[in-house]
Amino acid sequence: MSILVVGSVAYDTVETPFGKAERVLGGSASFFSVAASFFVPVNLVAVVGNDFGEKELAAFKDRPIDLSGLERAEGKTFHWSGKYSYDLNSRDTIFTDLNVFESFRPKIPAAFKKSEYVFLGNIDPALQRDVLDQVEKPKVVACDTMNFWISGRLEELKKTLARVDVLLINDSEARELSGEWNIVKAARAIRAMGPRALVIKKGEHGVLMFTTHGAFAAPAYPLEDVFDPTGAGDTFAGGFMGYLAGRGGEGDGALRRAIIMGSTLASFAVEAFSLDRLLRLTREEIEQRFQLFRQLTHFEAL
Amino acid sequence: MSILVVGSVAYDTVETPFGKAERVLGGSASFFSVAASFFVPVNLVAVVGNDFGEKELAAFKDRPIDLSGLERAEGKTFHWSGKYSYDLNSRDTIFTDLNVFESFRPKIPAAFKKSEYVFLGNIDPALQRDVLDQVEKPKVVACDTMNFWISGRLEELKKTLARVDVLLINDSEARELSGEWNIVKAARAIRAMGPRALVIKKGEHGVLMFTTHGAFAAPAYPLEDVFDPTGAGDTFAGGFMGYLAGRGGEGDGALRRAIIMGSTLASFAVEAFSLDRLLRLTREEIEQRFQLFRQLTHFEAL
Repeated sequence: MSILVVGSVAYDTVETPFGKAERVLGGSASFFSVAASFFVPVNLVAVVGNDFGEKELAAFKDRPIDLSGLERAEGKTFHWSGKYSYDLNSRDTIFTDLNVFESFRPKIPAAFKKSEYVFLGNIDPALQRDVLDQVEKPKVVACDTMNFWISGRLEELKKTLARVDVLLINDSEARELSGEWNIVKAARAIRAMGPRALVIKKGEHGVLMFTTHGAFAAPAYPLEDVFDPTGAGDTFAGGFMGYLAGRGGEGDGALRRAIIMGSTLASFAVEAFSLDRLLRLTREEIEQRFQLFRQLTHFEAL
Repeated sequence: MSILVVGSVAYDTVETPFGKAERVLGGSASFFSVAASFFVPVNLVAVVGNDFGEKELAAFKDRPIDLSGLERAEGKTFHWSGKYSYDLNSRDTIFTDLNVFESFRPKIPAAFKKSEYVFLGNIDPALQRDVLDQVEKPKVVACDTMNFWISGRLEELKKTLARVDVLLINDSEARELSGEWNIVKAARAIRAMGPRALVIKKGEHGVLMFTTHGAFAAPAYPLEDVFDPTGAGDTFAGGFMGYLAGRGGEGDGALRRAIIMGSTLASFAVEAFSLDRLLRLTREEIEQRFQLFRQLTHFEAL
């Protein structure tokens, strides 16, 4: 089994109440790949500029992450900068320099076309579909998107969703996409657009998943020190898809454990800037925290 | 076993996006008592004015709710009016006519003084302590409060908390009371003030409980039709304390099931105005929905 991920590899400049990190490794495909690589080989497709250094590439080394789809284009690497509020619950974007990412047209290497699991990061929905046109019958296609595409490219997005198995979005995106405020009604409307599983990410309030088997609710792990929330959603997606692909199977039970695994990986990602915590994470720590999620949520029948 | 509850019995005038209810039965002690009465006899202490009618009293009839502590005072009954936003996540208070509740000094009838479980509704913390002075060695004392007392009567409140076993408050109140934004740090600081269990209510995002055994997280039940959130927190408290007193025992497992039972009762309360849904609720419905909470949260170990 292997996972294809298409998304961004970027520089982030982030300020939180606890410090500032300048031009550190970020991007949806970066967080996703490192998280998923704990479970299964990852085929990464993204673009960087000629300013992207060996130091940043080192993050992917010694892991089962195939970089042969990491295109180098003339120009600068995507650079995002943001500043979080004192409570980490909101952030202002200082700047978004798309640079080489602006004209990114994902080209899937021949060796990646048989990837059984595909994660379409948050890019133009027409490009997401273009990726699907280049791969051969994946077993599971998962997809992220954002308000920008929901409000600006809704018809394109709906065509993509018709070909997607799992959609992972946050609660405000689910509401905007469905036009329903109530989250149960929103989930029904979105699942009617195509995805058999809808995963709604609620940050510190956890995750809700809707499938044919009904709803599953998982809390976020109550952390004493949240340092930087950047990349939590992409890390969640990497842990979720990595677990499914590597060990999970396809039933409702596997999807539930995948949600907890995504939440587990995300709970580590926010403990430091950039991918710092993920890069020093061990399998033992992952299994211990997964078990802590059981203690956090378990109760006996009446 | 029996529970003593001290709080408000009131008229509510509520407007939600789905309709309006004028001068219907409300108040913390009303919601609490009806919820708890599914499990254990309830001793109610509150005050109403001479405008309070037989129709409203009928809600408590045919239930194990002892009304001998329901004082009738000269004047009008406490009347609150509020209007909810389109998403039900915020509300504006239209008016708060305290009326006879303003000079409420709880007098605990002799027959109530041996109540093993005590719930101190949201009143002046000095009056809460006055109630504790009137009762004999209760097994469990639980308490609600609000920002008004936290900001205005903090020292009084701290004296009360030193005598409380379980504090039930919402997340913004926990943050204000502790001066900590992070909820884990807030919980530690508040538990150091006295309560061995802290229950943090987060509305549609569920509940977090902190005890010596660590944290327990429960989601809110994802409802398709939330009609009126008024009284959800008091209903939660009633289900929580009722279950503990009636069947629960004292261990961490009992506290966890009590959290789910509180969430179960609250999920029904919001399905209609006032106490309407609670008053037609059956034990079978309660047990079914408790079981649905298991399905909503269960996952297997790795």
